[in-house]
Amino acid sequence: MPTAPRLRLTFLGTGDAAQTPVYGCNCSVCARARQNADHRRGPCSILLEMAGQRWLIDSGLPDLAERFPGGSLDGIFQTHYHADHAEGLLRLRWGVGPALPVYGPADPEGFADLYKYHGPLDFSRPFAAFERRPLGETAHITAIPLTHSRICFGYLIESGPCRFAYLTDTISLPPESAAYLRQYPLNLLILDCTFPPQESPPRNHNDLTRALETITALSPEKTLLTHISHAFDAWLETPSAQNALPPCVSCAQDGLSIICPDR
Amino acid sequence: MPTAPRLRLTFLGTGDAAQTPVYGCNCSVCARARQNADHRRGPCSILLEMAGQRWLIDSGLPDLAERFPGGSLDGIFQTHYHADHAEGLLRLRWGVGPALPVYGPADPEGFADLYKYHGPLDFSRPFAAFERRPLGETAHITAIPLTHSRICFGYLIESGPCRFAYLTDTISLPPESAAYLRQYPLNLLILDCTFPPQESPPRNHNDLTRALETITALSPEKTLLTHISHAFDAWLETPSAQNALPPCVSCAQDGLSIICPDR
Repeated sequence: MPTAPRLRLTFLGTGDAAQTPVYGCNCSVCARARQNADHRRGPCSILLEMAGQRWLIDSGLPDLAERFPGGSLDGIFQTHYHADHAEGLLRLRWGVGPALPVYGPADPEGFADLYKYHGPLDFSRPFAAFERRPLGETAHITAIPLTHSRICFGYLIESGPCRFAYLTDTISLPPESAAYLRQYPLNLLILDCTFPPQESPPRNHNDLTRALETITALSPEKTLLTHISHAFDAWLETPSAQNALPPCVSCAQDGLSIICPDR
Repeated sequence: MPTAPRLRLTFLGTGDAAQTPVYGCNCSVCARARQNADHRRGPCSILLEMAGQRWLIDSGLPDLAERFPGGSLDGIFQTHYHADHAEGLLRLRWGVGPALPVYGPADPEGFADLYKYHGPLDFSRPFAAFERRPLGETAHITAIPLTHSRICFGYLIESGPCRFAYLTDTISLPPESAAYLRQYPLNLLILDCTFPPQESPPRNHNDLTRALETITALSPEKTLLTHISHAFDAWLETPSAQNALPPCVSCAQDGLSIICPDR
């Protein structure tokens, strides 16, 4: 029986909009990140690699053109069009060569003047909510509506026995998205957890309290938190954070690479 | 008699919106720039340094936060709010610390959602056309209206005996700007020259033909061309470009540093 090709996902960035280090911030987390690049958190995005193809989820890396030379990407899945998720497109759109499809929600505004001067970027096939499309020869990707300050999709990726969801930017989940994701077990959940626990829910991003509620609701085998602020990293080092993360929940790091299925 | 402090200007970027190398382009100019970083052209901007103070004209460098740590800049003069002149602000606006003034034209649109989420960036004091303000203790800076696809100012800087104009992005000059600049001799003109000579005038940027017309009209001692496309660099290496640049006209390069007055 042929086996599904292995899917590698790599965290290109795990930071919030400010990234870590935050400009001008001298807190211990930001100071450490300036000393040691292993502690930096860039704009939130992942790379998917499977059977020689490569896609991004989000394009906020400003140096996208250097990291992924022309022709090396097969497509970009946008969660949404905030700057920290789309900045890298600003340079790619002045490029030459074959069209590079950029899939995402049908956001009439987009980012800056990207739609007006899109160059080889092809925005012509946005996702509808819960639309499921092939990803490469053997996998599928489905757009999952999230709760954010503008239209925003997470993505469910199904590759052979591996089923993982990438959910950022969001505060909690729309009930229909939670119901959709609960239909089958999730091997891996990658979830927005921007802030330490707050008394009342933040507006556009999870704090740890709401992230843990979503994790409980979806019961994934494993969760990696992302879109992490310097404040959350700082809080994790305080005594009140001891045992705050359940055993199957941890923070992603820039550069972390995972292979699915890994068994 | 006290002498004026020396003003150092450094070209941080001399490229057009696409920069060099252009994403996905394999022309000889772009290939060379990938081989040798000395031939790269980043987003068009300069650094001004005088008596311990530092200002930028334009902020398109995506790695502004790395190059100029919090507290190291005294202000940013925006020519306009196109992405390749403002992208670096996207990260700075999430910073902490004292306000960083960003002066420029009163463009109601700005860039992306920068005005909405401006953080420490202070956009509250835009320039009016031909407004002249102090720059540091001893110099002055004046906003010079240009001709571009959106409201755009060049800047005239007067420091002791040194008088130089930074004019990009523009196609030719509005007559009143040319008249203003012709009042006194210019030691140095830094001018948009995006394209090789074209039969008819381009819409938003100088080709060499229109740049030379402006140089003739302003009669500066010396001119450095900037906002240079890969196509102009490629054309300069063709036989038809021999002697195309008059003796006092040359192309700026990223990293080029000039001290005024230099005599």
